[in-house]
Amino acid sequence: MLILHGYWLSLAAYRVRAALKLKGVAFEERMHDLSASHHNLPAFRALNPAGAVPALEGGTPEPLTQSLAILEWLEETYPATPLLPPDAAGRARVRSMFLLAAADTHPLAVPRVQKRLAAQFGADAAAGREWAAHWYREGLSAYEGLLHDGATRCHNETLSLADLALASHLIGAERFGVDVSAFPRVAAVGTSLFKLPEFESSHPQYQEGAVAP
Amino acid sequence: MLILHGYWLSLAAYRVRAALKLKGVAFEERMHDLSASHHNLPAFRALNPAGAVPALEGGTPEPLTQSLAILEWLEETYPATPLLPPDAAGRARVRSMFLLAAADTHPLAVPRVQKRLAAQFGADAAAGREWAAHWYREGLSAYEGLLHDGATRCHNETLSLADLALASHLIGAERFGVDVSAFPRVAAVGTSLFKLPEFESSHPQYQEGAVAP
Repeated sequence: MLILHGYWLSLAAYRVRAALKLKGVAFEERMHDLSASHHNLPAFRALNPAGAVPALEGGTPEPLTQSLAILEWLEETYPATPLLPPDAAGRARVRSMFLLAAADTHPLAVPRVQKRLAAQFGADAAAGREWAAHWYREGLSAYEGLLHDGATRCHNETLSLADLALASHLIGAERFGVDVSAFPRVAAVGTSLFKLPEFESSHPQYQEGAVAP
Repeated sequence: MLILHGYWLSLAAYRVRAALKLKGVAFEERMHDLSASHHNLPAFRALNPAGAVPALEGGTPEPLTQSLAILEWLEETYPATPLLPPDAAGRARVRSMFLLAAADTHPLAVPRVQKRLAAQFGADAAAGREWAAHWYREGLSAYEGLLHDGATRCHNETLSLADLALASHLIGAERFGVDVSAFPRVAAVGTSLFKLPEFESSHPQYQEGAVAP
Protein backbone atom coordinates (compact mmCIF):
# COMPACT_ATOMS: atom_id res chain seq x y z
CA MET A 1 0.00 0.00 0.00
CA LEU A 2 1.28 3.45 -0.90
CA ILE A 3 1.47 5.94 1.94
CA LEU A 4 1.29 9.62 1.12
CA HIS A 5 2.88 11.73 3.81
CA GLY A 6 1.20 15.09 3.68
CA TYR A 7 -0.04 18.15 5.49
CA TRP A 8 -3.51 19.52 5.03
CA LEU A 9 -2.34 22.87 3.70
CA SER A 10 0.42 21.57 1.39
CA LEU A 11 -0.26 22.41 -2.25
CA ALA A 12 2.40 19.93 -3.38
CA ALA A 13 0.63 17.17 -1.41
CA TYR A 14 -2.61 18.33 -3.02
CA ARG A 15 -1.20 17.70 -6.49
CA VAL A 16 -0.14 14.16 -5.57
CA ARG A 17 -3.36 13.37 -3.65
CA ALA A 18 -5.55 14.38 -6.59
CA ALA A 19 -3.38 12.42 -9.05
CA LEU A 20 -3.61 9.24 -6.96
CA LYS A 21 -7.39 9.62 -6.96
CA LEU A 22 -7.55 10.34 -10.69
CA LYS A 23 -5.51 7.22 -11.40
CA GLY A 24 -7.55 5.13 -8.96
CA VAL A 25 -4.43 4.06 -7.07
CA ALA A 26 -5.12 2.89 -3.51
CA PHE A 27 -3.24 4.90 -0.88
CA GLU A 28 -3.35 5.92 2.74
CA GLU A 29 -2.45 9.38 3.84
CA ARG A 30 -0.58 10.29 7.01
CA MET A 31 -0.73 13.90 7.99
CA HIS A 32 2.17 15.72 9.64
CA ASP A 33 1.54 18.99 11.42
CA LEU A 34 4.11 21.24 9.80
CA SER A 35 2.74 24.22 11.77
CA ALA A 36 4.04 22.42 14.87
CA SER A 37 7.36 21.69 13.07
CA HIS A 38 6.68 17.96 12.91
CA HIS A 39 8.76 17.92 9.71
CA ASN A 40 11.77 18.36 11.99
CA LEU A 41 11.04 15.25 14.08
CA PRO A 42 13.65 12.50 13.63
CA ALA A 43 11.02 10.03 12.31
CA PHE A 44 10.03 12.45 9.57
CA ARG A 45 13.61 13.41 8.71
CA ALA A 46 14.37 9.70 8.30
CA LEU A 47 11.62 9.64 5.71
CA ASN A 48 12.71 12.79 3.91
CA PRO A 49 15.99 14.40 5.00
CA ALA A 50 14.88 17.64 3.34
CA GLY A 51 11.96 17.78 5.82
CA ALA A 52 9.29 18.55 3.23
CA VAL A 53 5.97 17.04 2.23
CA PRO A 54 4.82 15.26 0.19
CA ALA A 55 6.76 12.02 0.49
CA LEU A 56 5.40 8.83 -1.04
CA GLU A 57 6.36 5.64 0.75
CA GLY A 58 5.82 2.03 -0.22
CA GLY A 59 6.39 2.01 -3.96
CA THR A 60 10.17 2.27 -4.04
CA PRO A 61 13.08 1.25 -1.79
CA GLU A 62 13.35 4.85 -0.56
CA PRO A 63 10.44 7.29 -0.18
CA LEU A 64 9.88 9.58 -3.14
CA THR A 65 9.88 13.35 -2.69
CA GLN A 66 9.07 16.48 -4.76
CA SER A 67 5.61 16.54 -6.30
CA LEU A 68 6.73 16.48 -9.95
CA ALA A 69 9.16 13.60 -9.36
CA ILE A 70 6.40 11.66 -7.59
CA LEU A 71 3.90 12.42 -10.36
CA GLU A 72 6.30 11.31 -13.11
CA TRP A 73 6.89 8.09 -11.17
CA LEU A 74 3.12 7.55 -10.83
CA GLU A 75 2.74 8.16 -14.56
CA GLU A 76 5.42 5.59 -15.37
CA THR A 77 4.18 3.06 -12.81
CA TYR A 78 0.41 3.46 -13.29
CA PRO A 79 0.01 4.48 -16.94
CA ALA A 80 -3.78 4.11 -16.91
CA THR A 81 -5.54 7.50 -16.90
CA PRO A 82 -2.51 9.20 -18.42
CA LEU A 83 -1.71 12.67 -17.12
CA LEU A 84 0.85 13.44 -19.80
CA PRO A 85 0.04 13.87 -23.51
CA PRO A 86 1.07 11.23 -26.07
CA ASP A 87 3.41 13.59 -27.97
CA ALA A 88 6.78 14.93 -26.83
CA ALA A 89 5.92 18.56 -27.60
CA GLY A 90 2.69 18.26 -25.63
CA ARG A 91 4.49 16.69 -22.71
CA ALA A 92 6.97 19.58 -22.74
CA ARG A 93 4.15 22.12 -22.75
CA VAL A 94 2.39 20.37 -19.87
CA ARG A 95 5.58 20.11 -17.82
CA SER A 96 6.33 23.77 -18.50
CA MET A 97 2.87 24.78 -17.28
CA PHE A 98 3.32 22.57 -14.24
CA LEU A 99 6.57 24.30 -13.32
CA LEU A 100 5.00 27.73 -13.63
CA ALA A 101 3.15 26.90 -10.41
CA ALA A 102 5.48 24.37 -8.83
CA ALA A 103 8.80 26.14 -9.43
CA ASP A 104 8.11 29.79 -10.28
CA THR A 105 5.37 30.50 -7.75
CA HIS A 106 4.72 28.01 -4.98
CA PRO A 107 8.28 27.90 -3.55
CA LEU A 108 8.17 31.67 -3.12
CA ALA A 109 5.17 31.58 -0.79
CA VAL A 110 5.74 28.60 1.50
CA PRO A 111 6.09 28.95 5.29
CA ARG A 112 9.90 28.71 5.32
CA VAL A 113 10.01 31.74 2.99
CA GLN A 114 7.45 33.62 5.07
CA LYS A 115 9.60 32.92 8.14
CA ARG A 116 12.70 34.19 6.41
CA LEU A 117 10.95 37.38 5.31
CA ALA A 118 10.01 37.97 8.94
CA ALA A 119 13.51 37.18 10.21
CA GLN A 120 15.48 39.17 7.64
CA PHE A 121 13.11 42.03 6.82
CA GLY A 122 10.74 42.11 9.78
CA ALA A 123 7.79 41.25 7.56
CA ASP A 124 4.57 40.89 9.54
CA ALA A 125 1.74 38.54 8.53
CA ALA A 126 0.12 41.15 6.27
CA ALA A 127 3.40 41.83 4.44
CA GLY A 128 3.93 38.10 4.05
CA ARG A 129 0.47 37.74 2.53
CA GLU A 130 1.13 40.66 0.18
CA TRP A 131 4.40 39.03 -0.90
CA ALA A 132 2.68 35.72 -1.62
CA ALA A 133 -0.26 37.38 -3.37
CA HIS A 134 2.14 39.22 -5.68
CA TRP A 135 3.68 35.97 -6.91
CA TYR A 136 0.33 34.25 -7.27
CA ARG A 137 -0.85 37.17 -9.42
CA GLU A 138 2.30 36.94 -11.54
CA GLY A 139 1.66 33.23 -12.05
CA LEU A 140 -2.01 33.79 -12.89
CA SER A 141 -1.01 36.37 -15.47
CA ALA A 142 1.42 33.91 -17.07
CA TYR A 143 -1.22 31.14 -17.11
CA GLU A 144 -3.75 33.54 -18.62
CA GLY A 145 -1.35 34.09 -21.54
CA LEU A 146 -0.91 30.36 -22.09
CA LEU A 147 -4.54 29.19 -21.93
CA HIS A 148 -6.91 29.32 -24.87
CA ASP A 149 -10.28 31.09 -24.95
CA GLY A 150 -13.07 28.74 -23.99
CA ALA A 151 -10.71 26.07 -22.66
CA THR A 152 -11.74 23.87 -19.73
CA ARG A 153 -8.32 22.22 -19.44
CA CYS A 154 -4.75 23.56 -19.65
CA HIS A 155 -3.73 21.47 -22.64
CA ASN A 156 -5.76 20.03 -25.50
CA GLU A 157 -8.95 19.74 -23.42
CA THR A 158 -7.51 16.65 -21.74
CA LEU A 159 -6.64 16.33 -18.06
CA SER A 160 -2.92 16.54 -17.39
CA LEU A 161 -0.34 17.35 -14.75
CA ALA A 162 -0.74 20.99 -15.80
CA ASP A 163 -4.32 20.94 -14.49
CA LEU A 164 -3.15 19.59 -11.13
CA ALA A 165 -0.65 22.45 -10.94
CA LEU A 166 -3.17 25.08 -12.00
CA ALA A 167 -5.70 23.82 -9.43
CA SER A 168 -3.05 24.01 -6.71
CA HIS A 169 -2.15 27.50 -7.88
CA LEU A 170 -5.78 28.58 -7.59
CA ILE A 171 -6.00 27.18 -4.06
CA GLY A 172 -2.91 29.18 -3.14
CA ALA A 173 -4.20 32.33 -4.85
CA GLU A 174 -7.50 32.06 -2.98
CA ARG A 175 -5.72 31.55 0.31
CA PHE A 176 -3.76 34.77 -0.17
CA GLY A 177 -6.81 36.76 -1.20
CA VAL A 178 -6.05 37.16 -4.91
CA ASP A 179 -9.03 38.00 -7.12
CA VAL A 180 -8.94 35.28 -9.76
CA SER A 181 -11.81 36.79 -11.76
CA ALA A 182 -9.32 39.23 -13.28
CA PHE A 183 -7.93 36.20 -15.16
CA PRO A 184 -11.00 34.89 -17.00
CA ARG A 185 -9.40 31.98 -18.88
CA VAL A 186 -7.77 30.70 -15.70
CA ALA A 187 -11.02 31.14 -13.79
CA ALA A 188 -12.93 29.16 -16.44
CA VAL A 189 -10.49 26.24 -16.35
CA GLY A 190 -10.52 26.32 -12.55
CA THR A 191 -14.32 26.24 -12.35
CA SER A 192 -14.35 23.22 -14.62
CA LEU A 193 -11.58 21.40 -12.75
CA PHE A 194 -13.10 21.78 -9.30
CA LYS A 195 -16.30 20.18 -10.57
CA LEU A 196 -14.31 16.94 -10.72
CA PRO A 197 -14.65 15.04 -7.42
CA GLU A 198 -10.94 14.14 -7.38
CA PHE A 199 -9.94 17.79 -7.55
CA GLU A 200 -12.58 19.01 -5.13
CA SER A 201 -12.31 16.29 -2.47
CA SER A 202 -8.52 16.68 -2.41
CA HIS A 203 -8.83 20.38 -1.47
CA PRO A 204 -6.87 21.27 1.69
CA GLN A 205 -10.02 22.43 3.49
CA TYR A 206 -11.35 18.84 3.57
CA GLN A 207 -8.17 17.22 4.91
CA GLU A 208 -7.45 16.04 8.42
CA GLY A 209 -6.19 18.88 10.58
CA ALA A 210 -7.60 21.64 8.37
CA VAL A 211 -8.09 25.00 10.04
CA ALA A 212 -10.69 27.44 8.73
CA PRO A 213 -9.13 30.56 7.15
CA MET B 1 18.81 23.73 -36.12
CA LEU B 2 17.88 24.17 -32.48
CA ILE B 3 18.20 27.70 -31.11
CA LEU B 4 18.72 28.14 -27.40
CA HIS B 5 17.58 31.55 -26.22
CA GLY B 6 19.60 32.37 -23.16
CA TYR B 7 21.31 34.94 -21.03
CA TRP B 8 24.89 34.58 -19.87
CA LEU B 9 23.98 34.60 -16.18
CA SER B 10 20.92 32.32 -16.38
CA LEU B 11 21.41 29.12 -14.40
CA ALA B 12 18.42 27.53 -16.13
CA ALA B 13 20.00 28.24 -19.51
CA TYR B 14 23.23 26.77 -18.13
CA ARG B 15 21.49 23.47 -17.41
CA VAL B 16 20.12 23.24 -20.96
CA ARG B 17 23.37 24.43 -22.61
CA ALA B 18 25.42 21.77 -20.82
CA ALA B 19 22.86 19.06 -21.63
CA LEU B 20 22.90 19.91 -25.33
CA LYS B 21 26.69 19.63 -25.29
CA LEU B 22 26.65 16.35 -23.34
CA LYS B 23 24.22 14.88 -25.86
CA GLY B 24 26.20 16.24 -28.79
CA VAL B 25 23.14 17.98 -30.22
CA ALA B 26 23.96 20.84 -32.60
CA PHE B 27 22.54 24.18 -31.49
CA GLU B 28 23.03 27.91 -31.78
CA GLU B 29 22.60 30.21 -28.85
CA ARG B 30 21.09 33.67 -28.94
CA MET B 31 21.73 35.78 -25.92
CA HIS B 32 19.18 38.26 -24.57
CA ASP B 33 20.30 40.96 -22.18
CA LEU B 34 17.89 40.47 -19.30
CA SER B 35 19.72 43.16 -17.31
CA ALA B 36 18.46 45.60 -19.96
CA SER B 37 14.95 44.05 -19.77
CA HIS B 38 15.20 42.56 -23.23
CA HIS B 39 12.88 39.78 -22.02
CA ASN B 40 10.13 42.40 -22.16
CA LEU B 41 10.66 43.22 -25.84
CA PRO B 42 7.74 42.17 -28.06
CA ALA B 43 9.96 39.83 -30.11
CA PHE B 44 11.01 37.95 -26.99
CA ARG B 45 7.51 37.87 -25.50
CA ALA B 46 6.31 36.33 -28.79
CA LEU B 47 8.83 33.57 -28.16
CA ASN B 48 7.96 33.08 -24.49
CA PRO B 49 4.98 35.00 -23.12
CA ALA B 50 6.31 34.41 -19.60
CA GLY B 51 9.40 36.44 -20.55
CA ALA B 52 11.94 33.99 -19.14
CA VAL B 53 14.98 32.20 -20.48
CA PRO B 54 15.76 29.55 -21.53
CA ALA B 55 13.51 28.97 -24.51
CA LEU B 56 14.39 26.31 -27.06
CA GLU B 57 13.23 27.02 -30.59
CA GLY B 58 13.27 24.84 -33.68
CA GLY B 59 12.43 21.40 -32.36
CA THR B 60 8.71 21.83 -31.81
CA PRO B 61 5.89 23.94 -33.31
CA GLU B 62 6.11 26.32 -30.35
CA PRO B 63 9.29 27.16 -28.42
CA LEU B 64 9.87 25.09 -25.30
CA THR B 65 10.32 26.78 -21.93
CA GLN B 66 11.32 25.80 -18.37
CA SER B 67 14.64 24.00 -18.04
CA LEU B 68 13.24 20.69 -16.75
CA ALA B 69 10.55 20.56 -19.45
CA ILE B 70 13.21 21.25 -22.09
CA LEU B 71 15.56 18.64 -20.62
CA GLU B 72 12.85 15.96 -20.50
CA TRP B 73 12.06 16.76 -24.15
CA LEU B 74 15.74 16.47 -25.07
CA GLU B 75 15.90 13.16 -23.24
CA GLU B 76 12.90 11.82 -25.17
CA THR B 77 14.05 13.22 -28.51
CA TYR B 78 17.79 12.49 -28.26
CA PRO B 79 18.03 9.38 -26.09
CA ALA B 80 21.75 8.86 -26.74
CA THR B 81 23.86 9.82 -23.71
CA PRO B 82 20.92 9.30 -21.36
CA LEU B 83 20.62 11.78 -18.50
CA LEU B 84 17.94 9.81 -16.65
CA PRO B 85 18.53 6.39 -15.03
CA PRO B 86 17.01 3.23 -16.54
CA ASP B 87 14.81 2.50 -13.50
CA ALA B 88 11.70 4.40 -12.37
CA ALA B 89 12.90 4.79 -8.77
CA GLY B 90 16.22 6.17 -9.98
CA ARG B 91 14.48 8.59 -12.32
CA ALA B 92 12.35 9.81 -9.43
CA ARG B 93 15.43 10.32 -7.25
CA VAL B 94 17.20 12.25 -10.02
CA ARG B 95 14.17 14.44 -10.72
CA SER B 96 13.77 15.10 -7.02
CA MET B 97 17.41 16.19 -6.75
CA PHE B 98 16.95 18.34 -9.84
CA LEU B 99 14.00 20.15 -8.28
CA LEU B 100 15.91 20.84 -5.09
CA ALA B 101 17.90 23.36 -7.12
CA ALA B 102 15.43 24.26 -9.86
CA ALA B 103 12.29 24.66 -7.73
CA ASP B 104 13.31 25.01 -4.08
CA THR B 105 16.32 27.30 -4.50
CA HIS B 106 16.90 28.99 -7.83
CA PRO B 107 13.45 30.68 -8.15
CA LEU B 108 14.03 32.35 -4.77
CA ALA B 109 17.17 34.16 -5.90
CA VAL B 110 16.44 35.36 -9.43
CA PRO B 111 16.44 39.07 -10.39
CA ARG B 112 12.64 39.43 -10.30
CA VAL B 113 12.69 38.30 -6.67
CA GLN B 114 15.59 40.59 -5.83
CA LYS B 115 13.64 43.46 -7.38
CA ARG B 116 10.56 42.59 -5.36
CA LEU B 117 12.57 42.46 -2.13
CA ALA B 118 13.84 45.95 -2.90
CA ALA B 119 10.38 47.27 -3.80
CA GLN B 120 8.46 45.73 -0.90
CA PHE B 121 11.06 45.66 1.87
CA GLY B 122 13.63 48.19 0.74
CA ALA B 123 16.30 45.50 0.47
CA ASP B 124 19.59 46.86 -0.81
CA ALA B 125 22.05 44.82 -2.87
CA ALA B 126 23.77 43.41 0.22
CA ALA B 127 20.47 42.29 1.75
CA GLY B 128 19.49 40.73 -1.57
CA ARG B 129 22.76 38.80 -1.64
CA GLU B 130 22.25 37.67 1.94
CA TRP B 131 18.73 36.47 1.05
CA ALA B 132 20.01 34.49 -1.94
CA ALA B 133 22.97 33.08 -0.02
CA HIS B 134 20.62 31.81 2.70
CA TRP B 135 18.63 29.74 0.19
CA TYR B 136 21.75 28.45 -1.54
CA ARG B 137 23.08 27.30 1.83
CA GLU B 138 19.75 25.57 2.59
CA GLY B 139 19.95 23.79 -0.75
CA LEU B 140 23.58 22.80 -0.22
CA SER B 141 22.66 21.34 3.15
CA ALA B 142 19.86 19.29 1.58
CA TYR B 143 22.18 18.04 -1.19
CA GLU B 144 24.83 17.15 1.38
CA GLY B 145 22.29 14.89 3.09
CA LEU B 146 21.40 13.15 -0.17
CA LEU B 147 24.87 12.51 -1.60
CA HIS B 148 27.00 9.53 -0.65
CA ASP B 149 30.51 9.66 0.76
CA GLY B 150 33.12 9.49 -1.98
CA ALA B 151 30.58 10.09 -4.75
CA THR B 152 31.59 11.95 -7.90
CA ARG B 153 28.03 12.09 -9.27
CA CYS B 154 24.64 12.73 -7.67
CA HIS B 155 23.16 9.34 -8.52
CA ASN B 156 24.81 5.96 -9.04
CA GLU B 157 28.10 7.44 -10.27
CA THR B 158 26.44 8.14 -13.62
CA LEU B 159 25.84 11.58 -15.13
CA SER B 160 22.23 12.69 -14.88
CA LEU B 161 19.96 15.71 -14.83
CA ALA B 162 20.68 15.92 -11.09
CA ASP B 163 24.32 16.72 -11.87
CA LEU B 164 23.27 19.54 -14.19
CA ALA B 165 21.14 20.96 -11.39
CA LEU B 166 23.85 20.57 -8.76
CA ALA B 167 26.39 22.26 -11.02
CA SER B 168 24.00 25.18 -11.59
CA HIS B 169 23.41 25.34 -7.84
CA LEU B 170 27.15 25.57 -7.22
CA ILE B 171 27.49 28.38 -9.75
CA GLY B 172 24.72 30.26 -7.96
CA ALA B 173 26.21 29.58 -4.53
CA GLU B 174 29.59 30.87 -5.68
CA ARG B 175 28.03 33.98 -7.16
CA PHE B 176 26.41 34.81 -3.83
CA GLY B 177 29.57 34.18 -1.85
CA VAL B 178 28.57 30.93 -0.14
CA ASP B 179 31.44 28.82 1.19
CA VAL B 180 30.84 25.44 -0.44
CA SER B 181 33.72 23.77 1.40
CA ALA B 182 31.39 23.45 4.41
CA PHE B 183 29.54 20.83 2.35
CA PRO B 184 32.28 18.31 1.51
CA ARG B 185 30.22 15.75 -0.42
CA VAL B 186 28.72 18.48 -2.59
CA ALA B 187 32.13 20.05 -3.10
CA ALA B 188 33.61 16.70 -4.18
CA VAL B 189 30.88 16.08 -6.75
CA GLY B 190 31.20 19.65 -7.98
CA THR B 191 34.97 19.40 -8.43
CA SER B 192 34.49 16.26 -10.48
CA LEU B 193 31.69 17.70 -12.60
CA PHE B 194 33.51 20.89 -13.56
CA LYS B 195 36.42 18.81 -14.88
CA LEU B 196 34.07 17.80 -17.70
CA PRO B 197 34.45 20.21 -20.62
CA GLU B 198 30.68 20.35 -21.21
CA PHE B 199 30.08 21.53 -17.64
CA GLU B 200 33.02 23.92 -17.55
CA SER B 201 32.65 25.54 -20.99
CA SER B 202 28.93 26.13 -20.34
CA HIS B 203 29.74 28.21 -17.23
CA PRO B 204 28.14 31.68 -17.33
CA GLN B 205 31.52 33.40 -17.11
CA TYR B 206 32.46 32.14 -20.59
CA GLN B 207 29.24 33.19 -22.32
CA GLU B 208 28.66 36.18 -24.60
CA GLY B 209 27.88 39.28 -22.57
CA ALA B 210 29.41 37.98 -19.35
CA VAL B 211 30.41 40.61 -16.82
CA ALA B 212 33.16 39.92 -14.29
CA PRO B 213 31.83 39.65 -10.69
